[in-house]
Amino acid sequence: MDIDRANTETVERMMEARPVLVGLGKAIDVVPGMRHNLLLHAGPPITWDRASGPMRGALIGALLFEGKAQNAAEAEALVKSGAIDLEPCHDHQAVGPMAGVTSPSMEMYILENKTHGNFSYSNLNEGYGKVLRYGAYDASVLKRLHWLNDVMAPVLRHAIEAGGGIDIKALLAEALHMGDEGHNRNKAGSILYLKALAPHVAKAAPNADVAAAILKDIGDNALSVLNPVMAACKAMADAGRNIEGSTIVTAMARNGTDIGIRVSGLGDQWFTAPCPQPRGLYFPGFTAEDGSPDIGDSTITETAGIGGFAMAAAPAIVTFVSGTPQDAIDTTLEMYEITFTEHKYFTIPALGFRGTPTGLDIRKVVETGIEPRVNTGIAHKDAGVGQIGAGLVRPPMALFEKALVAYAEKYGF
Amino acid sequence: MDIDRANTETVERMMEARPVLVGLGKAIDVVPGMRHNLLLHAGPPITWDRASGPMRGALIGALLFEGKAQNAAEAEALVKSGAIDLEPCHDHQAVGPMAGVTSPSMEMYILENKTHGNFSYSNLNEGYGKVLRYGAYDASVLKRLHWLNDVMAPVLRHAIEAGGGIDIKALLAEALHMGDEGHNRNKAGSILYLKALAPHVAKAAPNADVAAAILKDIGDNALSVLNPVMAACKAMADAGRNIEGSTIVTAMARNGTDIGIRVSGLGDQWFTAPCPQPRGLYFPGFTAEDGSPDIGDSTITETAGIGGFAMAAAPAIVTFVSGTPQDAIDTTLEMYEITFTEHKYFTIPALGFRGTPTGLDIRKVVETGIEPRVNTGIAHKDAGVGQIGAGLVRPPMALFEKALVAYAEKYGF
Repeated sequence: MDIDRANTETVERMMEARPVLVGLGKAIDVVPGMRHNLLLHAGPPITWDRASGPMRGALIGALLFEGKAQNAAEAEALVKSGAIDLEPCHDHQAVGPMAGVTSPSMEMYILENKTHGNFSYSNLNEGYGKVLRYGAYDASVLKRLHWLNDVMAPVLRHAIEAGGGIDIKALLAEALHMGDEGHNRNKAGSILYLKALAPHVAKAAPNADVAAAILKDIGDNALSVLNPVMAACKAMADAGRNIEGSTIVTAMARNGTDIGIRVSGLGDQWFTAPCPQPRGLYFPGFTAEDGSPDIGDSTITETAGIGGFAMAAAPAIVTFVSGTPQDAIDTTLEMYEITFTEHKYFTIPALGFRGTPTGLDIRKVVETGIEPRVNTGIAHKDAGVGQIGAGLVRPPMALFEKALVAYAEKYGF
Repeated sequence: MDIDRANTETVERMMEARPVLVGLGKAIDVVPGMRHNLLLHAGPPITWDRASGPMRGALIGALLFEGKAQNAAEAEALVKSGAIDLEPCHDHQAVGPMAGVTSPSMEMYILENKTHGNFSYSNLNEGYGKVLRYGAYDASVLKRLHWLNDVMAPVLRHAIEAGGGIDIKALLAEALHMGDEGHNRNKAGSILYLKALAPHVAKAAPNADVAAAILKDIGDNALSVLNPVMAACKAMADAGRNIEGSTIVTAMARNGTDIGIRVSGLGDQWFTAPCPQPRGLYFPGFTAEDGSPDIGDSTITETAGIGGFAMAAAPAIVTFVSGTPQDAIDTTLEMYEITFTEHKYFTIPALGFRGTPTGLDIRKVVETGIEPRVNTGIAHKDAGVGQIGAGLVRPPMALFEKALVAYAEKYGF
């Protein structure tokens, strides 16, 4: 077994993938395996009784959004009755930030990897604060979800199609030269996204007021491109799946209770551990005690070689997640210790245009004792509240140790 | 004479100035002292016989644009006849990139310094390549100028007014955290500008096609915000003019033949020297031999504490102007040696959020022997060609020595 050769193939496929945002469609129509009684969620598999507060809040909100329940109690009873299935986004070529809850009628971004032909999906970004993905579900949350789904999505679909698609890989490479790291800081990426969309939105909107509202929404939401970026990273990571003998991580995701990873040479098996607690900066009125354990599929960005791994590209992010610009540099330098290669297309100007640390290698994590570093948002631990901060977290060593044991069992050494 | 106190007042006024883009109007209607037979130009005063190729080309183009001449020979004859006056933009509260030629019917950005009440002006940005400000004047150049003036400008005026103005100081502070330095790299700033404008453009445009064309133009031109930024820097620098005893530079500008500076404590007197030749990277097909001596009012950015002085904020710019990211850091560090203070509002994440070097001090330049560093575009030396590259240049020591001699004469020490 030539592990290095297997890993080279994995990372080459991940780096050569070219995910392009090609359109939108309702989850029920476009996401493989979507069903009317199915809700997708972030992270490895989870049941209602073990679900965290923000995950429960988002599941409730999604059922209210779908009109399958009239209030939180009805929604909870419906899930508990077994009438609603819960499955990971990752099992449906999808990813979702934070709770990642995706319901059948939600509009989804569709990404196509033009190199290898695989597709990936993600829902629309709601912005900061009191939003479904952080477990909030009041009337204002549902109203905004309906606006995104019913007003914005159809215009975006026409705009993206009219523009011939948006190359999210190229957008990310550019954003990394503009102070983004692509996970918690997507400020440049979101206005690059606006730039690509704007002329087509002006033409696709039914009238100037709707065009103006959509342009304002996309422009003002510094995370508007996060979901296409996450889906792009999913398409890149999926291109590296199932390479016999490879020790590279192809998925890393949290549901607020468990964190899990998948490894290329070990198929779709999840290796899990309890979610760690992020540390960071909190919005006024909240403290670390209010925080939920780590949650979300957004660690797909680090899996693809950006996000926390590319912190050195985004020194200004420390005002949002804590630390100093030197910490940001040090984070990236440390991640080179546990990754297999340096990205061919994602580069960091401040490091002399060095490629980002790419291909998280379970062998290196265990050998060096260095856990990965990821950026993350922080949700309130209770259902119904929302985002309370942002910070940093390290997926625990146990994940990588478990995976390495399974690898040794499968491959016999 | 307490020079430090005078300089403190100068830089405080420059830093506390808050230039807001409040609208547009034709030069003849809004620029103080504009006349029907007047063309404004970059740099200190110049005459036709001493004018460089790109300056002559831009003067010709402006007269063709105004319909005052039918061809280059007529335009040249008109200027030589004495029927057309030439005066510096700087004498009319205006600035213009490269040749900076501004004619009476050109639409101008209007900036208001909300702190001190002074106004400043700049024309519209044409983009890269074969453009008037680099001395090109063929039919395609004139056609584009007419589109900017007749189609885009009226929509921008309504959009800016509807938005209540755009705070260019805040935009610049943000862009410096997104890899811009505000002079040769305005990539982030230009899409922040698009973000501010887009919803209002959608509503202000006469129809969706015009809205789309304008949104595409502003978004695709990575220098679209350069002219408002330059005017903002002019408004900031002007706020520091005429402080008795101050040794801070309040204008630095080149006409392609002479480079000149003005000093706060020495009023509106220009101290001049021959323009140096920039060194940098050339577009395919051109070499250093094709380059014009340095030209343009854009050094108003360095005068206000950004541009070349803030290179450390923009490591990716070296792909455009030559050098390494470390050179970019070193440039900013060197500029601290010859400036009076560090900016309160313009900060550099990579330097631990240190303020940019602000307030170029003629004493320090002469004492240290360090000439300033500025970023610049490179024009072809012949009229009618256009931009051929971008690079770096140092305004020569002679400027600062002459100014210091004049200072000693005026203040008696």
